[in-house]
Amino acid sequence: MTPKPLVDATHDPSLKSWVEPANDPTCDFPIQNLPLGRFRRRGSDEPWRVGVAIGDQVLDLMLAAQQCPWAEGVHELLAPLVAGDLAGFMAAGTAARRRVREALSAALADGSDQGPFLELCLLPQAEAELTLPCRIGGFTEFDAGLRHATAVGRLLRPDDPPRAVDEWVPTGRHGRASSIVASGNAVRRPMGPVQAPGADAPSLVPSATLDCEPGLGVLIGRGNALGEPLTMEQAEQAWFGMVLLNAWTARDIQAWEARTPGLLLAKGFATTISPWVVTAEALAPYRVPFARPEGAPPLLPHLNAAFNSAAGAIDIGLEVWLQTAAMRAASAPPQRLAQGRFRDSDWTLAQLIAHLTSGGCNLCPGDLLGSGTPPGPDPRRSGSLLELTEGGRMPLTLPGGQARTFLQDGDTVILRAHCRAPGRARIGFGEAVGTVVG
Amino acid sequence: MTPKPLVDATHDPSLKSWVEPANDPTCDFPIQNLPLGRFRRRGSDEPWRVGVAIGDQVLDLMLAAQQCPWAEGVHELLAPLVAGDLAGFMAAGTAARRRVREALSAALADGSDQGPFLELCLLPQAEAELTLPCRIGGFTEFDAGLRHATAVGRLLRPDDPPRAVDEWVPTGRHGRASSIVASGNAVRRPMGPVQAPGADAPSLVPSATLDCEPGLGVLIGRGNALGEPLTMEQAEQAWFGMVLLNAWTARDIQAWEARTPGLLLAKGFATTISPWVVTAEALAPYRVPFARPEGAPPLLPHLNAAFNSAAGAIDIGLEVWLQTAAMRAASAPPQRLAQGRFRDSDWTLAQLIAHLTSGGCNLCPGDLLGSGTPPGPDPRRSGSLLELTEGGRMPLTLPGGQARTFLQDGDTVILRAHCRAPGRARIGFGEAVGTVVG
Repeated sequence: MTPKPLVDATHDPSLKSWVEPANDPTCDFPIQNLPLGRFRRRGSDEPWRVGVAIGDQVLDLMLAAQQCPWAEGVHELLAPLVAGDLAGFMAAGTAARRRVREALSAALADGSDQGPFLELCLLPQAEAELTLPCRIGGFTEFDAGLRHATAVGRLLRPDDPPRAVDEWVPTGRHGRASSIVASGNAVRRPMGPVQAPGADAPSLVPSATLDCEPGLGVLIGRGNALGEPLTMEQAEQAWFGMVLLNAWTARDIQAWEARTPGLLLAKGFATTISPWVVTAEALAPYRVPFARPEGAPPLLPHLNAAFNSAAGAIDIGLEVWLQTAAMRAASAPPQRLAQGRFRDSDWTLAQLIAHLTSGGCNLCPGDLLGSGTPPGPDPRRSGSLLELTEGGRMPLTLPGGQARTFLQDGDTVILRAHCRAPGRARIGFGEAVGTVVG
Repeated sequence: MTPKPLVDATHDPSLKSWVEPANDPTCDFPIQNLPLGRFRRRGSDEPWRVGVAIGDQVLDLMLAAQQCPWAEGVHELLAPLVAGDLAGFMAAGTAARRRVREALSAALADGSDQGPFLELCLLPQAEAELTLPCRIGGFTEFDAGLRHATAVGRLLRPDDPPRAVDEWVPTGRHGRASSIVASGNAVRRPMGPVQAPGADAPSLVPSATLDCEPGLGVLIGRGNALGEPLTMEQAEQAWFGMVLLNAWTARDIQAWEARTPGLLLAKGFATTISPWVVTAEALAPYRVPFARPEGAPPLLPHLNAAFNSAAGAIDIGLEVWLQTAAMRAASAPPQRLAQGRFRDSDWTLAQLIAHLTSGGCNLCPGDLLGSGTPPGPDPRRSGSLLELTEGGRMPLTLPGGQARTFLQDGDTVILRAHCRAPGRARIGFGEAVGTVVG
């Protein structure tokens, strides 16, 4: 069976919701999106509950399951969501997810007779505190944007022979799951070993070249048993949804640790993800053909599949915004630093998953894979600060005459992403926000 | 406060147990050990329960808490153990752990009036199925044996400039927590990209040079909050106990992936740990001074502490044994391949923990750190198969005339470890066993 992203009535661009703000064309969460996340009333210490973002509201699924009649079979499928266990729902597989999506779409649609019940189950997003969608099990970060990964290597280690960022298979490394945080958490500037020019010993110092590493993350739904690799077709069915992912990186520590057999401190001191998981089903209308880069070698068999060339990629526009403390004080809005086009990544999600499991490694519900930084439409306006400033040599000019090479304390980095397709609604990912503290 | 490994009455070598086999001097689990693990009756599908290994028995702590009177306050401390939540107990801190150790020691000691109650709470280890001690959160693997790590680099990449396995700070990499398995699970030979000599492209093939990577693992008890590094003193209090750890490695895939920015498939397809956690308290009598290697640079401040030089190291003798399918068929016992001396590692546990958290990364109860392969008393008889066979050039001869360079299907690798100290009981870790399947 070739998996095929299913575009159905839930994606109909003319569909409106009785939650009026969802019908604003600039809203990230129209009824065609229906992302899932975990929330509680801000300021409370209630247990985290699962909700759906719709317009500027959160639909509380625990309340919704109790207070609203549902079509036969839906109530059972909602059970893990009612229990606050989003990872349990991720594990339920695509058929269950599609059924719940259809039910939520019908219930939130204009004119639904479930509306009067569900109106009582809404909480304004402004009154909600959001957290990680689930306990993240394993975290592995890929370099699916070869141009970015190659540029980083060249800028950090200009005198070294380039470490191959391979065109044969996806490359990457495993990361720390413990330090993945939800949007809004502060990011403390890390310490790490850095050797000053001319010094004969490293010192443990606060990173002077803290950078963002903008990308996307994919959460695993149904994974695989240990020792049982996934085919490309199975890999495509194995992922549940996507989030924004900022893999903060200390470039000076990275340059020092690149001499050693692995990165320990340069990454993994904090990784910020957005709280709303945009599901594979919501992303179906934005699937586009995947093309290998010009001149790339042929695909190894385990990374090749007909559906991948037909619709393996996803058209997601990623944006990186910066607001410094001075800009915030002057009420100046964030400034856009960079743009990325996820569809131009060198590997698709199915390829990342198929490759990681090809050695037998298992993936579990709630495991997270990072994409790495995708290329952008304009190479001079894409990637991380390392690339935007040519290794720190060309500072960026910000409103009010401020200059930036790397991040300073008080700087807020905001990732945003949107999907657009002809004749389709625009959906968004919300934000992944982190402010640097010293 | 300088932490000091506390040697107390629970370590008295003259202490005997009413569980007779625990008094056999060759038994890994005398009353001075009292390691914790999770078990259930073999062949059942009961929930996993926490138990203590004593002699050839498991003391079921759920039953023991219900059926036996305990001194005031102990029952409350047993609560997470009764619930099967060993990670919850790990998080409880050293005072709680010491109190429970004292209570268990008294209850299991010869002449205890709790004996008649606890006799009803024993299950022979032969009838118990053992699993991972807890859900492993994050997994980070260090190269605390520099000689091994340097030798691996030289043998895998003889033409490359050596990747610094640094004497300034511990080096290592993050790993996959999902594929950590308990002793006894089969290890499937992984696939991965390998480029044959003279070939102009890699292929995805089963590893032809599968190797063991013998070491020890340390489980975190009370960790740290994100962004709040641990001092050496705090790091010494942060770990709960140790297990055997075999970080299986595919050397051919490792050689290929070493060209790229990280290892994805060469490790992480399976990591085997022993089921019984030998606690920091049980290891107290075997603490020895830590000495920096001859000619090593001075310690950076975050890795330096008086207690570390006094008693930072732990005297653990590690052994690697091999039994091939042919040996098993001929009822030939396993043969010892290698020995390691953990006390000679280049870094102590506190240094690994202090360094990993120095960048701000948080460690959580149940997170696991791997030590890497420690040096052995005889360099020609220590390390992994890669070193023992000089990169596969000098096969080992086994009983029955078999030869081995790397692991073949049907080969069983067994790790064992023991602690000895003058005038002290000998304690053991049990075994970490894995058999390679094709």
